[in-house]
Amino acid sequence: MRSLNEKCAVVGVFDENAAKKAYLALFAMQHRGQEASGISSSDGKNIHTIKDRGLVNDVFNDEKIAKLTGKMAIGHNRYSTAGDDSILDAQPVFARYDLGEMAIVHNGNLTNAQEVRKELIKNGSIFQSSMDTENLIHLIAKSNAGNLKDRILEALAIVKGAYSFIFLSRTKMFVARDPHGFRPLSLGKIGDGYIVASETCAFDLAGAKFIRDVEPGEMLIFEKNKEPESVRFAEPIPKQCIFEHIYFARPDSVVFGESVYNVRKELGRILAREMPVEADMVVPVPDSSVSHALGYSEESKIPFEFGIIRNHYVGRTFIEPMQEIRDLKVKMKLSPIKSLIQGKKLVIIDDSIVRGTTSKKIVSLLRDAGAKEIHMRIASPAVKYPCFYGIDTPEKNELISNRMDAEEIRKYIGADSLSFLSVDALCKGAKDKNNHCLACFNGSYF
Amino acid sequence: MRSLNEKCAVVGVFDENAAKKAYLALFAMQHRGQEASGISSSDGKNIHTIKDRGLVNDVFNDEKIAKLTGKMAIGHNRYSTAGDDSILDAQPVFARYDLGEMAIVHNGNLTNAQEVRKELIKNGSIFQSSMDTENLIHLIAKSNAGNLKDRILEALAIVKGAYSFIFLSRTKMFVARDPHGFRPLSLGKIGDGYIVASETCAFDLAGAKFIRDVEPGEMLIFEKNKEPESVRFAEPIPKQCIFEHIYFARPDSVVFGESVYNVRKELGRILAREMPVEADMVVPVPDSSVSHALGYSEESKIPFEFGIIRNHYVGRTFIEPMQEIRDLKVKMKLSPIKSLIQGKKLVIIDDSIVRGTTSKKIVSLLRDAGAKEIHMRIASPAVKYPCFYGIDTPEKNELISNRMDAEEIRKYIGADSLSFLSVDALCKGAKDKNNHCLACFNGSYF
Amino acid sequence: MRSLNEKCAVVGVFDENAAKKAYLALFAMQHRGQEASGISSSDGKNIHTIKDRGLVNDVFNDEKIAKLTGKMAIGHNRYSTAGDDSILDAQPVFARYDLGEMAIVHNGNLTNAQEVRKELIKNGSIFQSSMDTENLIHLIAKSNAGNLKDRILEALAIVKGAYSFIFLSRTKMFVARDPHGFRPLSLGKIGDGYIVASETCAFDLAGAKFIRDVEPGEMLIFEKNKEPESVRFAEPIPKQCIFEHIYFARPDSVVFGESVYNVRKELGRILAREMPVEADMVVPVPDSSVSHALGYSEESKIPFEFGIIRNHYVGRTFIEPMQEIRDLKVKMKLSPIKSLIQGKKLVIIDDSIVRGTTSKKIVSLLRDAGAKEIHMRIASPAVKYPCFYGIDTPEKNELISNRMDAEEIRKYIGADSLSFLSVDALCKGAKDKNNHCLACFNGSYF
Amino acid sequence: MRSLNEKCAVVGVFDENAAKKAYLALFAMQHRGQEASGISSSDGKNIHTIKDRGLVNDVFNDEKIAKLTGKMAIGHNRYSTAGDDSILDAQPVFARYDLGEMAIVHNGNLTNAQEVRKELIKNGSIFQSSMDTENLIHLIAKSNAGNLKDRILEALAIVKGAYSFIFLSRTKMFVARDPHGFRPLSLGKIGDGYIVASETCAFDLAGAKFIRDVEPGEMLIFEKNKEPESVRFAEPIPKQCIFEHIYFARPDSVVFGESVYNVRKELGRILAREMPVEADMVVPVPDSSVSHALGYSEESKIPFEFGIIRNHYVGRTFIEPMQEIRDLKVKMKLSPIKSLIQGKKLVIIDDSIVRGTTSKKIVSLLRDAGAKEIHMRIASPAVKYPCFYGIDTPEKNELISNRMDAEEIRKYIGADSLSFLSVDALCKGAKDKNNHCLACFNGSYF
Repeated sequence: MRSLNEKCAVVGVFDENAAKKAYLALFAMQHRGQEASGISSSDGKNIHTIKDRGLVNDVFNDEKIAKLTGKMAIGHNRYSTAGDDSILDAQPVFARYDLGEMAIVHNGNLTNAQEVRKELIKNGSIFQSSMDTENLIHLIAKSNAGNLKDRILEALAIVKGAYSFIFLSRTKMFVARDPHGFRPLSLGKIGDGYIVASETCAFDLAGAKFIRDVEPGEMLIFEKNKEPESVRFAEPIPKQCIFEHIYFARPDSVVFGESVYNVRKELGRILAREMPVEADMVVPVPDSSVSHALGYSEESKIPFEFGIIRNHYVGRTFIEPMQEIRDLKVKMKLSPIKSLIQGKKLVIIDDSIVRGTTSKKIVSLLRDAGAKEIHMRIASPAVKYPCFYGIDTPEKNELISNRMDAEEIRKYIGADSLSFLSVDALCKGAKDKNNHCLACFNGSYF
Repeated sequence: MRSLNEKCAVVGVFDENAAKKAYLALFAMQHRGQEASGISSSDGKNIHTIKDRGLVNDVFNDEKIAKLTGKMAIGHNRYSTAGDDSILDAQPVFARYDLGEMAIVHNGNLTNAQEVRKELIKNGSIFQSSMDTENLIHLIAKSNAGNLKDRILEALAIVKGAYSFIFLSRTKMFVARDPHGFRPLSLGKIGDGYIVASETCAFDLAGAKFIRDVEPGEMLIFEKNKEPESVRFAEPIPKQCIFEHIYFARPDSVVFGESVYNVRKELGRILAREMPVEADMVVPVPDSSVSHALGYSEESKIPFEFGIIRNHYVGRTFIEPMQEIRDLKVKMKLSPIKSLIQGKKLVIIDDSIVRGTTSKKIVSLLRDAGAKEIHMRIASPAVKYPCFYGIDTPEKNELISNRMDAEEIRKYIGADSLSFLSVDALCKGAKDKNNHCLACFNGSYF
Repeated sequence: MRSLNEKCAVVGVFDENAAKKAYLALFAMQHRGQEASGISSSDGKNIHTIKDRGLVNDVFNDEKIAKLTGKMAIGHNRYSTAGDDSILDAQPVFARYDLGEMAIVHNGNLTNAQEVRKELIKNGSIFQSSMDTENLIHLIAKSNAGNLKDRILEALAIVKGAYSFIFLSRTKMFVARDPHGFRPLSLGKIGDGYIVASETCAFDLAGAKFIRDVEPGEMLIFEKNKEPESVRFAEPIPKQCIFEHIYFARPDSVVFGESVYNVRKELGRILAREMPVEADMVVPVPDSSVSHALGYSEESKIPFEFGIIRNHYVGRTFIEPMQEIRDLKVKMKLSPIKSLIQGKKLVIIDDSIVRGTTSKKIVSLLRDAGAKEIHMRIASPAVKYPCFYGIDTPEKNELISNRMDAEEIRKYIGADSLSFLSVDALCKGAKDKNNHCLACFNGSYF
Repeated sequence: MRSLNEKCAVVGVFDENAAKKAYLALFAMQHRGQEASGISSSDGKNIHTIKDRGLVNDVFNDEKIAKLTGKMAIGHNRYSTAGDDSILDAQPVFARYDLGEMAIVHNGNLTNAQEVRKELIKNGSIFQSSMDTENLIHLIAKSNAGNLKDRILEALAIVKGAYSFIFLSRTKMFVARDPHGFRPLSLGKIGDGYIVASETCAFDLAGAKFIRDVEPGEMLIFEKNKEPESVRFAEPIPKQCIFEHIYFARPDSVVFGESVYNVRKELGRILAREMPVEADMVVPVPDSSVSHALGYSEESKIPFEFGIIRNHYVGRTFIEPMQEIRDLKVKMKLSPIKSLIQGKKLVIIDDSIVRGTTSKKIVSLLRDAGAKEIHMRIASPAVKYPCFYGIDTPEKNELISNRMDAEEIRKYIGADSLSFLSVDALCKGAKDKNNHCLACFNGSYF
């Protein structure tokens, strides 16, 4: 069972104009999911939901936001997963159950989803979507506990894996982050109330102020006329996804207590120290590797140049390439500045290599543009193991670093040199206090 | 809990090209539901579903039908219900449960849906839509019986009301019609296999031949390399919805054993005998009252004239009327032929009067067009009671015949005379053998 | 050069809320053109135009109508012509020229368009569309006359063929109908002003009253604070298109002084007298032949039955037929009532036969449905010659009556008998006073 | 008469698969116009045109490109102009005239368009759009010269202003650049043929190689089996738009013989020398000012930081801001990295200031994010005069530099300091050899 909630965004708002604020937060977190978007609000009596395929600005407009009345709202952006665009897999997931109405949003991936689902199905539950999020609803609905809080706690004791959950009942909002804290989740102050969101960049646009991260293993309960209640439902064993810092999060977010931008620059600096090379310029693969490249340049004193331009108009329609135009898809996205790189020795900074196919095409583009030497520097270690906690990684044997060592990859992509960051260096750059998940690099699942 | 499956259409195909044949059947039954359309097919291993808002031809094209592989398919057209266009309420409803995968379509309305749902919810079931169809899935999923057939039988023993259900598992198709047989459901031969559909007009387009009606209280089971198995799961107490003959069904369908067209003509004939009037011409309110009017004309010898033209381009967008244009919405749909009706005494035949507002506007249109006398003849009795079995009737106090007698209604709509068909006459016309539901006329629910 | 303005609709409104009234008129005349729709209005200083592909209700909404300010407006519905959906061929056509701004709508077909265009092109005019309407603009723009009225008169002296033109300048509206009066054009009173439209059914919806037809060879000029001025620019030699009565116009319109509905019924009556047949029922091919069939039934005393149902949900998307389903396209549109026609002798009334392919399919449908005898009665003479004045007829050799006599056609379509109306009978039915064009039947072009 | 062709893109391809190559070129030049896109091709006998509103990838797909057959094609991207989305103003403009068929695309603005149009209108020409491009067609159509080449030359002798024209006849392609060479236009080798495009970035994607710029006052003629013919139709007096280097062109293009990226970096370097400031970091307003900022950082040794993130998902729909959220539109596009800039002294590099309103909002955003000092450095001189040659500048009194001096602007936008580049410095940076237009800075129109 694939999780569809991996690299998604969740938000919960407990304040006036809740839906509009949730909309702004989702807009700011659009980079975490472009497939579908949705918001549920509660007006105290009923839960209202609007969700559909498309970008936040496709799904919502003033008229629709106006229908989402109430002072509580939760929202979700769904990450695009190839080929499956079922509207049924959009969130929030809504359900009527014995305590009333409930809506849930989920960012993460439950590792025991199959077993839990099997058990639930054996006991008569039905599943209408392929989302592991449905597990939670069933666990809560089947519980004999007398109130929602206790039921959620019961459910959380059962599910394993990565999750940032936000639950909306008619009168309360519950927020829970898994004991490993795989995905980021932060608490902010907004107006007279509160906001919880996957990334702090959502706070800036929605007009909120960062308070603190929701702790791994912590549940927050929001209720009218009360201060937020914090419940520790599990011992925290932080295993925060280091890929948020490498690639997922927006550079203006603060994730796991560290500025994403700063971490990326620091990774670039370390990469420059660890894997130096003589070259004329440092060039990032835009947009995600810009910060890393700035760090590499700063440390190495090799000038930073914006040598590859990214076309943001791409959209979904691609035309069949003519025979004489190779690598059309990558070419339509990325354009090297010929006049700049011709005859030059380049350090190309990319955040990661997964399959290796794009890197191969980038090297080819740069060669065609006249680059003299191409030194690939990857701001993360070789990805050798699939992720079970929420990153949309391919099967193990599709991971190029699982099949090849660095030298073989270098030959495959056609670079003059290739280096990855070491795991230790990554930890240092991300100020790891043994609190990050490194499983995709070292296979230590837990 | 409102049923959304009232005046809908269901189809099940057990033959080659199942999805394409289901599509054609749904297309022929478009008049039963225009809000959403969907098909699930099984290829023996997996159930595939495509459903969306819109007309059959909006939702499906060759490419989509091609994805619905397999030799079994079920389909559904959903009736438009004002204001609620949630895609979640489209059918087929799909679920994974302990015996595998299942899809259901439903035409009808379960009268004990609330109680069953309450009980299910009390026992931990959750409901994600507002469709009573979800009840069935839960009952089946929770059952301890060892196979789907027994579970469906168990579930059918619990639910009450109107239903034509078609269930699709990975390898079988089950069809069930409620013991009262409220909604029509017929069995046909198609290619080397079978088809089941709400209306026989679906058979004609899909290339099938009518065999017989599915009996009230009968379940049919279709399985590869076997003849269809018939199971009688309840004593039949036929209470077939007489409104199918009055208004719902297409005139080229055979419903409850009688040609809709013939019944309507006969109702018109009886109306002419029961409620004669001296007039220059008989004019139907198109399209649904044409057959009734032909019967009235035939019997009364008053010439039939197509005195009101219906505009079929209407669509959804209506422009704000100018102050000087009254009744714009009805005027955009219906246009009297002035030259024909000017100075004439008209018998206007309509199939029914529910709220009375449209009749009032029609009379006003005809007066403006110069009609000398307007005699409304309604080819059904006064609708005094709401329907709990599936017709989308308004609340009791919105039913004009609940508040007014015929004379008061006549004054309200402005006609020169107004007569309804008697209940006895209706029964006679529809060849009732005490096998129809007349609750909306006489309040005899059961 | 093909005309694209053939079976189109034009409207001109000279009154308050001009654009909204033009919209209603276009909506009522949607049957004359479904490809594109447009309106130009003048506020006295500027001409505003909105036009696009699609039905009237697709192109316009309240917001767009609100932009079309002013007390004068002209509108157009464009007839669909296979394969060419260029928005450039939508009307009104707008132009800036030496006297200011101008918009034109045109219903008809100019027979000397090629020569006029060649001459214009030789003198330096350019043509941006394939519409013969552009000729008019150039003739007007090139004229040396000092005012628009004289220029229009000059232009009308040059162009030949069928036209109902409406011209809008910033301050005036001009209406002109060709000397033969091929296409219908009527004048009505609306509010404190006037309306001109292709069909009188537009008056009913827009809230106008019929005054009289615009005469062949007449120009009407509308100007603020003045009574409409009538100018006779050519000797009228009426050759009004008799196909308007046979097929084009809506039955609730009065065309060329006669009620379309009455004419069609009378044609049916004459057909019954001229071409009697012993049969069980008279069945129209819906929707266009219903009135003719009523007349046939009335005269022959053979009962009228609505034996073929038309599906109005068709839309544009058709699915590829399965091999076993023949004639799918016709089947999706037309459904015979099996129970009614099985074993019966039918008189099928159709308004005309052009290529013969549809008739062949209808006969085949009815045979499949069990008809015992099928007697086709066509309410118009055999179409042997192409139309140069505006009907979208195929090439001469595609006209089945050009290649076959009635008996050969009967065999081809598979009917038991086939008769056409005689030309004399047609003239009698349409109350012809030698004022109709019969060229498509007798080849007398003029 | 406003020009709509200002900041647009044109392309002409004379080779196999011409339309597909034109499509790729237009895609690469999407930044020059997002309102509409179109391509005309010639197959030697007919000219085919497809154009519509929307981005290149909205307008074209494989099926549409396949309809544009032939070995010659011209294309156009139209720049968005507020409020006017008429499809009639899309290009190519097509016309039939006395020598056959012709299509034209145009990038630029004709300064004597009104006079020429008036004269043309006086002589009987009509104008159907508001595009000055129509002038050309009329001039060519009215000419008495015997071939298209001579007619184009005649027309070019009449029109003044900025233009890059590409003309397509059935068998030839003509390219002309105005004597001042306002807009860029380059010639490339593609396959066995040639390509002409507004920017060289189009060559890279389409698979072409840069040959040279089309010279100011030069016409190129492409014909089958012949080498391109070059005709000098006017003395070149280069006045190339320096804003192409400042803002319009893509950094990977070579414009007017210089790499855009290099020029921008050099402008940044000069700005650093001319207008130094003590600060903690140099931050660009993305995306257009990144290269300038890199130059400023390089020269000043103040670290370059990507302190403002641009959201590329913006789209067209904006939600009404809540009262408490100021500057929402700018905030949805631009997000400062709080953790980076808090308490820091910033040099903000922007390419230009036109109205000043966006700058004011950016300063406000940065203040809210905690910046200690904000020093605006503008990589171009103060824009004091409107452009008549093609830039979409506002009216003179809307140009903030026309009303205020630098100190007043500084106060208005709330910065701690503000400096513009001097005109001399700009010329130096762009390697001006007295060949650029500087009218918007110094008012020297010519």
